[in-house]
Amino acid sequence: MAYILPASNRSMRPDRNTYDGKRFVHVKNPYLDTMDEDILYHLDLGTKTHNLPAMFGDVKFVCVGGSPNRMKAFALFMHKELGLAEGGEDIKDICAGTDRYCMFKTGPVLSISHGMGVPSISIMLHELIKLLHHARCCDVTVIRIGTSGGIGIAPGSVVITDTAVDSFFKPQFEQVILDNVVTRSTELDKELAEELFNCSKKILNFPTLIGHTMCTYDFYEGQARLDGALCSFSRESKLDYLKRAYKAGVRNIEMESTVFAAMCGLCGLKDRQVCGRRSNVASRAECAKSARAPCAKSARAPAAIHRTPPRPGSSGLFSVQPPGSTLQRRRHRTTRPLYWLSFHVGPKYTIREAKKLV
Amino acid sequence: MAYILPASNRSMRPDRNTYDGKRFVHVKNPYLDTMDEDILYHLDLGTKTHNLPAMFGDVKFVCVGGSPNRMKAFALFMHKELGLAEGGEDIKDICAGTDRYCMFKTGPVLSISHGMGVPSISIMLHELIKLLHHARCCDVTVIRIGTSGGIGIAPGSVVITDTAVDSFFKPQFEQVILDNVVTRSTELDKELAEELFNCSKKILNFPTLIGHTMCTYDFYEGQARLDGALCSFSRESKLDYLKRAYKAGVRNIEMESTVFAAMCGLCGLKDRQVCGRRSNVASRAECAKSARAPCAKSARAPAAIHRTPPRPGSSGLFSVQPPGSTLQRRRHRTTRPLYWLSFHVGPKYTIREAKKLV
Repeated sequence: MAYILPASNRSMRPDRNTYDGKRFVHVKNPYLDTMDEDILYHLDLGTKTHNLPAMFGDVKFVCVGGSPNRMKAFALFMHKELGLAEGGEDIKDICAGTDRYCMFKTGPVLSISHGMGVPSISIMLHELIKLLHHARCCDVTVIRIGTSGGIGIAPGSVVITDTAVDSFFKPQFEQVILDNVVTRSTELDKELAEELFNCSKKILNFPTLIGHTMCTYDFYEGQARLDGALCSFSRESKLDYLKRAYKAGVRNIEMESTVFAAMCGLCGLKDRQVCGRRSNVASRAECAKSARAPCAKSARAPAAIHRTPPRPGSSGLFSVQPPGSTLQRRRHRTTRPLYWLSFHVGPKYTIREAKKLV
Repeated sequence: MAYILPASNRSMRPDRNTYDGKRFVHVKNPYLDTMDEDILYHLDLGTKTHNLPAMFGDVKFVCVGGSPNRMKAFALFMHKELGLAEGGEDIKDICAGTDRYCMFKTGPVLSISHGMGVPSISIMLHELIKLLHHARCCDVTVIRIGTSGGIGIAPGSVVITDTAVDSFFKPQFEQVILDNVVTRSTELDKELAEELFNCSKKILNFPTLIGHTMCTYDFYEGQARLDGALCSFSRESKLDYLKRAYKAGVRNIEMESTVFAAMCGLCGLKDRQVCGRRSNVASRAECAKSARAPCAKSARAPAAIHRTPPRPGSSGLFSVQPPGSTLQRRRHRTTRPLYWLSFHVGPKYTIREAKKLV
């Protein structure tokens, strides 16, 4: 295939993306500048139909997550925390013209849903990055609020991800371009990971660790679950795989981190990237433990995050693990508050910075 | 990895799934029978919290599609077509407890959304198949109502898919199980494909063809689009790839068909599987043409389908291609009716059968 651009991880036009001390979000596609109009189809936005700089030019923080309802709840939370005008209850979905994704804006904070899995978040990220580029946004921090399952760690722990890995424990994301496979880096910023980890030490009963996060393309067979419609492996094989994952440094599993890390890294959102995760483990007993006192922990989490506001031009993920299909519905209900921790970890992390901009 | 079951495409327990002349939906997981409870987490349903046989035992047709709004519209359409009692406007989302998927039931017809991409539809299919299994459903027809992009065919054509292929034009779906890659067949039923194709010949101005459908993991780089946030290939490379895809028999591209074909095939829903697609091509000019008279075509489509009602125990896909992000918003709006064709093709295909059951 005749490449006109390097398919590497290097920024294509760094000179165009940093001046006046500002770091602009950049795309890695020379065709965009030649287009008469760019329609962000899945967001129901476009460069000719919307004044993107006026609508989004002040965006400094973008929090993305799988669930539309949770991202709306997150936006309402931010609306209140930022002390914005009344009417937060009627916060408008900017992407109301499509039901692929939901998008809410509260001051300089954008909240977007991305569905489940690499392909779904990939479409959203392509269009989000183009949106931030067209809007001439600068010094943007992106945080993913997602879900994950822990491996061999205490229920309720926060895992600060240093690297996203694939199902074979490799720190890479394989992107098929035409019929060529291009490998992209999924390494995250270790400096901020260490910074957050050091802060966590100052908080009582807030178990935190730095580790790898494994991204899979399937929730059941791909994550070694025994309760899918299909299961061709033994319980022993499952445990052996999870043990090998743990030995390789994996501390939790989800379904979007590799492409998130790869695309943010390619478009000027890589530095200061960090993944934070609150995890459970697979067994019912341990999950039951994790469901016991989530609120007590969630009350402490924001304080920890407050001590390390994000640097401009960063991105990260914060996830909370629901009990999953191996759990009793009762446990599922009791662990619902854990979701709220993710909302708290996300916005609280940005509130100090965001308030300066309102 | 120590497999306790063959990871092949063969049914595990055929003897358990066919008796009294009925074809039951089966799972391929020996652990399910040993579970105290099975929670279909992403559907917000469970074997202890819901009487699944009472709720879903009469289901004969399942139509799945990416968009929640369209699947609700499809259910409302079916409610009216089946002459069910009033109140269709308030049709209830059975999965209201979660926003991962939406599910609506109208008589023997189930309508479910699955989001975008292989991982998202994979989770839904695992839980849908378990739902149909727990509900003891038999002779079930599954139809996917999705979206696709055509390659080298006349805008407005219906493509009846004979085989779903991957980005390398191979008729297979690669499932990572633990850290092993298992290859599954994506071949579809050619008999029904031919049957539908013969019917289409009897309809004026209803261009139909049989071809392969390519499934990708990405909408932009994976489908050779030049308008993503990332693009490292030339226009010539794009055209060369699409030409090679056409030469390999590919007539349209989407993002879910391989796993749909593979999982239906493994769980007793394979025979009589057919994929029908209304496609456009990438260029603006051709897409503009495709937007001209969608309604006229949609009025004919159901008649064609009426002549070939589905056999019990079958599954299929029907898709409509939106103009996509390379198009003007104006064209996007004008082609909206094309979506409705997909709704018509789906339910009309089943109405004759469904009405017998109401």
